[in-house]
Formats: sequence, C-alpha cells, structure tokens
Amino acid sequence: MATINKNFTKLPGSYLFSTIAKKVNEFEKANPDAKIIRLGIGDVTKPIAPSVIKALHSAVDEMANADTFKGYAPDLGYAFLREKIAMYDYKDRGCDVNADEIFVSDGAKCDCSNIQEIFGLDNTIGVCDPVYPVYVDSNVMAGRTGDYNSKTDRFDNVIYMPCNSDNGFVPELPDKAPDLIYLCFPNNPTGAVISKDRLQEWVDYAIKNNSVILYDSAYEAFISEENVPHSIYECEGARKCAIEFRSFSKTAGFTGLRLGYTVVPKDLMVEGVALHGLWARRHGTKYNGAPYIVQKAGEAVYSPEGQREIRENISYYMENAKIILDGVKKAGFEAYGGVNAPYIWLKTPSDMTSWEFFDYLLEKACVVGTPGVGFGPEGENYFRLTAFGNRENTIKAIDRIKKL
Amino acid sequence: MATINKNFTKLPGSYLFSTIAKKVNEFEKANPDAKIIRLGIGDVTKPIAPSVIKALHSAVDEMANADTFKGYAPDLGYAFLREKIAMYDYKDRGCDVNADEIFVSDGAKCDCSNIQEIFGLDNTIGVCDPVYPVYVDSNVMAGRTGDYNSKTDRFDNVIYMPCNSDNGFVPELPDKAPDLIYLCFPNNPTGAVISKDRLQEWVDYAIKNNSVILYDSAYEAFISEENVPHSIYECEGARKCAIEFRSFSKTAGFTGLRLGYTVVPKDLMVEGVALHGLWARRHGTKYNGAPYIVQKAGEAVYSPEGQREIRENISYYMENAKIILDGVKKAGFEAYGGVNAPYIWLKTPSDMTSWEFFDYLLEKACVVGTPGVGFGPEGENYFRLTAFGNRENTIKAIDRIKKL
Repeated sequence: MATINKNFTKLPGSYLFSTIAKKVNEFEKANPDAKIIRLGIGDVTKPIAPSVIKALHSAVDEMANADTFKGYAPDLGYAFLREKIAMYDYKDRGCDVNADEIFVSDGAKCDCSNIQEIFGLDNTIGVCDPVYPVYVDSNVMAGRTGDYNSKTDRFDNVIYMPCNSDNGFVPELPDKAPDLIYLCFPNNPTGAVISKDRLQEWVDYAIKNNSVILYDSAYEAFISEENVPHSIYECEGARKCAIEFRSFSKTAGFTGLRLGYTVVPKDLMVEGVALHGLWARRHGTKYNGAPYIVQKAGEAVYSPEGQREIRENISYYMENAKIILDGVKKAGFEAYGGVNAPYIWLKTPSDMTSWEFFDYLLEKACVVGTPGVGFGPEGENYFRLTAFGNRENTIKAIDRIKKL
Repeated sequence: MATINKNFTKLPGSYLFSTIAKKVNEFEKANPDAKIIRLGIGDVTKPIAPSVIKALHSAVDEMANADTFKGYAPDLGYAFLREKIAMYDYKDRGCDVNADEIFVSDGAKCDCSNIQEIFGLDNTIGVCDPVYPVYVDSNVMAGRTGDYNSKTDRFDNVIYMPCNSDNGFVPELPDKAPDLIYLCFPNNPTGAVISKDRLQEWVDYAIKNNSVILYDSAYEAFISEENVPHSIYECEGARKCAIEFRSFSKTAGFTGLRLGYTVVPKDLMVEGVALHGLWARRHGTKYNGAPYIVQKAGEAVYSPEGQREIRENISYYMENAKIILDGVKKAGFEAYGGVNAPYIWLKTPSDMTSWEFFDYLLEKACVVGTPGVGFGPEGENYFRLTAFGNRENTIKAIDRIKKL
C-alpha cells in the first residue's frame, strides 16, 4: 500500500503568496473599479535588456539550424556562462571561485530548496526570523524539522534567529550552533545588509562548529554602499564552510526566463566528503540543465552593453526604493531597508497586526504589500513593500499611503 | 556538526552516460582521426521546427516590451499551454484529463526524479530491469532503498521486474505488489511497447493493491502501430492509481529547450489525501515554472503546422530506426524495438558482455552505443542503439556494423 510523505501535512495552510493572490482576487471581484497597485510579490516589471533580447534571438536562430542546434546541455551549465560568472562575479572582486565550482540552474528558488538533499536528515537548520519561506518549507517537506507548533508559530527542532530593529536585522550567533545556517544578505524581506566584519564572524563560527552556511546573495546587485560584502567568499575561510546562491531574476529581470547558479567550492568538505561531488551527482541525476537560449541570455548580461543596461534598470528600481522609503518615513512610518536592497520593511502603525495592515492598505489605498508575519513570527507588526513596480505606480501608491 | 546524506554514497560509480562520455573522450584522444558516430545517448539532432522557432522569436519580442513582458509564470504552467495539452494529448484520444490536472515543468527527468518526494520513505518501489537509471537513483538518494548489493548488482529493498525476450520485455505482475510502480512504454531502453489489455491488468493490479503507477510515456509520439496505448488514462480506473509523465524532448526536439509535464488526476488519493494537492505544494514551494518563451514554444507544437513539422521529424527518426533494425538483423543480430520507439535493443554476439561489445564497437567500427547492463543486470548481453542520429551517419554506422 502506497503512503504519502506525511511531512507535507506539517505545512500550515498555503504558500504565502498564494494566500495574498487569493485575497487580492476577492477584493478585485468585489471592487471591479479599484485601481490596485501591487508592491507585494518581488516580481520585476522592466522588460529584458536589449542586448539580452538580441542574444536570445540569435540563440533561437541557432536552434533552427542543424549545424548549430543544441540538444542536452552539459549537466552543470555551459562553459561560456560559467567562465563569465567566475570572472565577473568573483575574480574581479578578488574572490577565489573557479568556473568548475559554479552550477548553473533555472533559479535560486530551486537551488535553495534542493540543496538540503545532500545533507543528512539529522542536521538542525538555523534560519533568520523573518525569513524567505522556502528555506524552512523545503526542510519541513524533507523531514528535517519537528511539527508546526501553533503556540510559537514556529516549527519545532529549528533554530530561529530573531532579526529585529534591536539588532539591526542581523542575527546574533546562536549559543547552540545549527548544522546548516541559512543567511540571506541583502536580506529578503527586511532589506538589511551585513557588514564584512559581521559576516566574517559567521564564517569563523561555522568553521569552529563544523556548520555549513547556505548563503543567498540573490540581491547583491542592489548594494549601493561600500564595505557591504557582495559574496560570502570575500571572507577568509568561506571556501571551507559556505555554499552561495545567486540569481539572474532580480539582477537582470529573469523572473520569467529562469536562470541562477550555485557555488560549491571544492574545498568544502563534510564528514570527509566533498559537497561539490554530491551536488554534481544530484544535478546529473535529477536535472537536465537550463535551456541553451537562456544560458546565452545570461552570458549577454556580462557584456559591456548588458552591464550598462541592467545597471540602468537596477538604478530605476533603487530610485523607486528611495521614493518608497522617504515617502513612508514622511508619512510617519518607522521603516528600514531600501538602500542596498529593493525591499522596504516598515513597522505597522498603532500595533496593527501584519494582516490587519494588509487588509487596511488594500481596502483604503488599493495597495498590495506583503504581511511581515508571513515570513515568520518576528515579522509580526511589519510589512514589506517592494521597489519593482513602475515609477508612476510607485509614486501613486506612496501618495495614497501618505493620505491615509 | 553538519552531516551528509549518506544515501548518496550508496550509488556506485558515476552516472552511466558520464562513463560513456569519458570512454569516448579517451578513445578520441588516442585516435584523433577516427570518425566516431554516436548512437548512444538519446539526444536528438534535428533542429527545432520552423513554427516553433517563430513562436520563440515572437515570445522573445514580448519580453522586450514592458506592456507584454512576463515575469514569474503561474506555478503550474500557463493556461494556454495546459489547455492545449489537455485537448490534443488527452481529450482527442478519449482520455479524461483536465487542464488543471496538468503540471508544466522543465522536463520529464526532473519530474520523474522529484515525484518520489510526495511519498513516504516506507514505500517499496518496483522497477523494470533493465530501466532508465533515474527512477532508481532518485529513490536511492532519498533513502527509499537498501544498499547496493554487489552480488546481485542491484539495490536491496527494490522490487526488480525482469524484462527479457521471454516475456517480450513486458514485466509480469509481481507476487508482492510494490507500493510505487515505475512503468515506461514505449520503453527506454528496450523499445518494447505494452498492449492496452496488458496495461489494463497493471491498472487493475495497482487498484487492488493500493499501489500508485508512475507512468513514463515520454516516447508515445513514436508509436506507429494500432492498439498500443499512448496514455495510461486510456485504461479504465487509471485516474485512481496513476501519474503520467510526458516530455517535449523527443517529441519536438526540446532536449535543449527543456519542457515537459506531469498529469496528477484529482481522483488519485493515497491514505485519503489527494496527490494533486501534494504535488501542487511541492511545485509551488520548490519550483518557479518553465520559462514563458519555452511554454510559448510548447504551445506552437500543437498548431497544425507545428504538428505537421514534428511528425516529419519523427518519421525521419523512425526511418532511421528501420534502417538500424533491418541492418543489424541482416548482420545476424537478434534485435528488438525500433517500430514504436526510437530505440533498438540488440543482443550482443558470442556472449560478449555489454561493455565488451561497447569497446569492440567503438574500436572496430567507431560507433558509440549504450551498454545494456548500464540499465540493470537483466540488460547484460544487450546493447542499445538510438535512431536520433542523422541519416547519413546512421547508414554509415550500420554499414560498419555489417562489415564487422
């Protein structure tokens, strides 16, 4: 008799963004004339950059001709892309990362959620609270956590590391070291960054405790200030304790094209086994590579024109972020982020819960944001706005919020 | 202290096709003038069909414009594609499958290997022997099997169902029912098909034993004979016991574009839980959808021109299959498949092992095939050739084999 994976039943309700979509749909049905502005889900709105479009067309033409047609891609990605990544994202920043340590994939969400497969089920995970739900949920599904505890609104057997205004949204080193430590900077959802010194403390801590850091730097392209690390490999010793995830989704507007990559340094050993080999085996057995045409699009991002174009888009979004941050502050909100990240994390007014504020903002201003509590109990009384809208709507949304 | 997933260490050696690639590379280095013909890995050689290319260009142009740009895709696939699949692949064949039961993905390999996640680790799997390695390896990694037993060349705690010339390469119903039954027809690697009556027996057996059939019909487009089922949903009751995997890889030459789908009927309950909901949750949490441009390409496959063009390509490959099958038979080999599948399964001569014959064919004829034993011990003394080469090389390869 077949049985189901009962760990799935530990997950409460539906995925955060599905719940939001449902609420917004209901509101739209009830208010067909409402002009809703969405600053909720972190999806981009600027079209793909011209030089990337050109590369896509050219790659499509290659697929039309038997002499240039490409079938199965190399398991770990095409060398032309892996070499560009190693050069521009790492070596140019002084990070020791080689092309053969880069695993190209269809996005950081998949990699972040699949990476746990190469670790034992006996590992304890540590996550920031609030946190991008995928880290926890993928471990719940695998059976690496206890049950959902409705008293704490948290899963048992997970080390939650509170991030709040007291600690500048950067977690303290836990007394009991998690075996797998998920860190994301610039942070989703809080928009906070970590200094290089603080990140070095985490690397030292991981090495001392034989822990592995799973470092999500999907938003590194949005860093505008100096002394903020773009990669964990800027820290000494990180090659021995850290895996890093990157994405083209926000950097180059690839949310609908799907491209990302994961760095597993060859020096990273656990129980005497190189994680590089395990992840290569996982990739080879369960994945068939990102589409050739999308990998060619990724390559074009690294061309001088590509870089200029995506920098322009990022500046546009960061100008939105400034408009939101300044605007909500002027409206009297306590607000964070928005300087090195496309997310603004604001405190709800008058102790409203996150969902109360969600409903209030939707009903009174027709603006959709994301309830902070959706990212963990420490996110209660917070609310996330994103800078990925268009300028006109962003300004309109902030005007409406100011008028509340 | 972090630990690794020790199930990974149960996997012996490297993935079959990596081993073959390594051997061929070494041969090439030692014999730089050798004109090698590859009839080994099942990769296509015909370029993407013109109407699909046209759809790709048009979708790329949409991504270049803010008004038509597409970000995150719906988790389960765009409705325009899911509706076409439901109509043309199912309803037109009299199968009761709805659009909202179709989950679009980046390929059948990913789906076949990820589907096991929604089942308990206590399920026993049943696989054909020989078999596409991904079914077993993904379960090994998850911990659903015992150790690799070098005496039997098989994993403990897996029910292997021998497929050989005695049973026409269609397995018998096992005395002890596996909880999860992997079936693939038209079969990779043997090229065998199952009749509708025999498949109905499997469906009845699964219902009787509360088992779930995981049905891989990636090669259905190659069926040329009547009375061969294209889908398991042609059988009565299959909606209550079967999940089906399909791929655009071989059907439309998408090995480098990446598109596939999985059908999970809403009637399929295990322990009172709808598997549809579990797979939706898995998809929503760990996957971000196939690229919009690739889904548009998939849609174009269903247009009248698209259908005509892909049928032409399939006919081309099946003419290759005929050339190989007739050729090796004339050369005195016992051979199977090649009529409803792009694979020809031949018996090695003079009791040579599969790998001996691999080396012999590479050295004497510069032809690369796939050793049958790579698909399981029952494949020993067999060898797989594929029909996906170009005509000229296919004819040349068969001439060389005839001359041996």
